Amino acid sequence: MKIMFRYNWQIREEWYRWCEQVPEEELLRARTGGVGSVLKTLFHIADVEWSWIRILKGQPDFEEPFESYASLDKVRKLDAAFRAEVESFVNAWEESMETRPLYLTRPDGSVEIEAWGTIMRHVIAHEIHHIGQLSVWAREIGLAPVSANAIRKGLIQPNIARK
Amino acid sequence: MKIMFRYNWQIREEWYRWCEQVPEEELLRARTGGVGSVLKTLFHIADVEWSWIRILKGQPDFEEPFESYASLDKVRKLDAAFRAEVESFVNAWEESMETRPLYLTRPDGSVEIEAWGTIMRHVIAHEIHHIGQLSVWAREIGLAPVSANAIRKGLIQPNIARK
Repeated sequence: MKIMFRYNWQIREEWYRWCEQVPEEELLRARTGGVGSVLKTLFHIADVEWSWIRILKGQPDFEEPFESYASLDKVRKLDAAFRAEVESFVNAWEESMETRPLYLTRPDGSVEIEAWGTIMRHVIAHEIHHIGQLSVWAREIGLAPVSANAIRKGLIQPNIARK
Repeated sequence: MKIMFRYNWQIREEWYRWCEQVPEEELLRARTGGVGSVLKTLFHIADVEWSWIRILKGQPDFEEPFESYASLDKVRKLDAAFRAEVESFVNAWEESMETRPLYLTRPDGSVEIEAWGTIMRHVIAHEIHHIGQLSVWAREIGLAPVSANAIRKGLIQPNIARK
């Protein structure tokens, strides 16, 4: 699970760098699907990741609107501000947390229960899904997207002593 | 890791059902980004998943072209034919396989080494990424995409004896 978070952070950083070559109006342009623009998607990914971890910790989550962060620089800084807390939570993850229950109150007042492990996997899949959307929009802009490849990123050191 | 494969299989099945309401010409229509059409994407996901597992097993992978499977029914049947082998491989996964080395020969004859655990995560991320692309194309067609939500799917049973 930690590996998938590391993968996501690497890919996200590559997308931030990808954005540097694109005029800001293209990054903010409304697009079909997802949350509607490249920058809003990156904002949304960082927001959702941090917010779920805050919820698991029983702390207030992030509720500010994208409009307050509508530039590449602001989204990057917000993401960086969240990262330390997210990273320390992910690094402290252990097996016993997988089935720990999270009690969520629905708008109608009823309660649903999810395992912490499910929430973490939701966060992982959430980012990869939205990055897939960016890859389509990149082609619409006329640029090659960042590769989603997990291979050749040094995610896991192979044990070459055995064969 | 098994959980993410289960998540992917559930979502993929929902996309197959989603496809039932869409005229085949829309499913085959060339689109911007990814591998180019809805059906070719689903074919590609099933192909890549099975092929990597065949490579890990040291067996021949799948090399037939999409053109031989260019209908919803054919893609579903191909996917179903692959599934038993994929599922049994995933279910037999154990910790010691994470760092097992896979030796890959590049076109130039040189060899690269990846951990089996990285390959499996690549397969997981590969599908979620391409499903993200489908979600944009669904909106282009004028339909709501399948939700990518991992919550409320019963992926992990929370341990409600503790609190």
